Amino acid sequence: MKIIPVVGCKNCGKTTFLEKLIPELKSRGFSIAVIKHDVHSFDIDHEGKDTYRLKQAGADAVLISSPQKIAMVKDVAEELPLDKLANKFSDFDLVLTEGYKKFPIPKIEVFREAAGDEPLCKTGELLLLATDKKLDIKAEQFDIEDVKAIADFLETNHLKKPSKVIRAKLSVNGEKVPIKAFVQDFIAQGVAGMVSSLNGTEEPKKISLEIDLSEKPKK
Amino acid sequence: MKIIPVVGCKNCGKTTFLEKLIPELKSRGFSIAVIKHDVHSFDIDHEGKDTYRLKQAGADAVLISSPQKIAMVKDVAEELPLDKLANKFSDFDLVLTEGYKKFPIPKIEVFREAAGDEPLCKTGELLLLATDKKLDIKAEQFDIEDVKAIADFLETNHLKKPSKVIRAKLSVNGEKVPIKAFVQDFIAQGVAGMVSSLNGTEEPKKISLEIDLSEKPKK
Repeated sequence: MKIIPVVGCKNCGKTTFLEKLIPELKSRGFSIAVIKHDVHSFDIDHEGKDTYRLKQAGADAVLISSPQKIAMVKDVAEELPLDKLANKFSDFDLVLTEGYKKFPIPKIEVFREAAGDEPLCKTGELLLLATDKKLDIKAEQFDIEDVKAIADFLETNHLKKPSKVIRAKLSVNGEKVPIKAFVQDFIAQGVAGMVSSLNGTEEPKKISLEIDLSEKPKK
Repeated sequence: MKIIPVVGCKNCGKTTFLEKLIPELKSRGFSIAVIKHDVHSFDIDHEGKDTYRLKQAGADAVLISSPQKIAMVKDVAEELPLDKLANKFSDFDLVLTEGYKKFPIPKIEVFREAAGDEPLCKTGELLLLATDKKLDIKAEQFDIEDVKAIADFLETNHLKKPSKVIRAKLSVNGEKVPIKAFVQDFIAQGVAGMVSSLNGTEEPKKISLEIDLSEKPKK
């Protein structure tokens, strides 16, 4: 698991940048967690929802679990450090942060001329600068919009091969069927093997397969 | 850490019951987590918020951390079992659930005559029945509204002494000051010691202390 903080001054567009970078990296097979640093209080839950009501009633933690996801809100006595939070995602390929500019590892800084005079990070602290204006500093610089080039750079220089490239999602009769990781790999690799023997499909990356068994094939 | 599932048929008022039971148990010093079972999908996050945007962008997990609390939304490949979820709260006194009626430990069942014909649980599965009508079954039965009696029964028969009874919250000059647990205990026990020597305050349970040093005392 690799941690890469994404920092920048206020209103430089960190969230917008992450909204573009995340799908680019996801499409390459990386599993991604994001940790956002909030110095103020925040509300994630909806007033009136059961989880909100239980938290308001005084529960120190509320967790809701479904077959698709879990969500949790938990009080803390003091702020938890980034490395402790990131440990929760030890099985992920990549933890991107929003904020945590004091965490002492190389960072991506998002820079927009309209939002700040100069980067927050010293050049030695920068993994790369995603900027809307080429600056006269010694650091890797990329166009803030060119997340493909940024993902190429990260993939080549800073990320290990995705731990789980081949995955399968299955629906049967319109219902999503949850399948364990090893079964997913078994199905995905099996289908990829069939498909790759077809003309023009030597290296299948994404496969979409719809099967209809409702009518028997005509002879 | 003790797990007590709170179950009952649809619309019997599980959340409303928990909203009353939680503050009663909290006031006795127990730390409480609630795990809610949701067989459907759920939304905990607000559309438009940064965390929502990052999750929508494809992050497999999003965590937000502040000095007061953390919140997390994380995809799962399949539903996580209750015991695995409860392990996240191993340092809590009590994990109450909403749902999980198949989990094989004694449960609280919430029963309302208007919502169901008979309890879901067999008598052997019941820790107690919180009901609006006395039923002719062999089980501990309590008035659904009498959370004080229910908390008494749980505290006497099923819960260990709270792990952290004495706690202190500190504000200085109007700003909340986060303090570590052992410092909280040190302050709380010190002040409790001072207070208990005063007339009529032999067993202080809750102490509220406002100190104003802005003016020097008159001689």
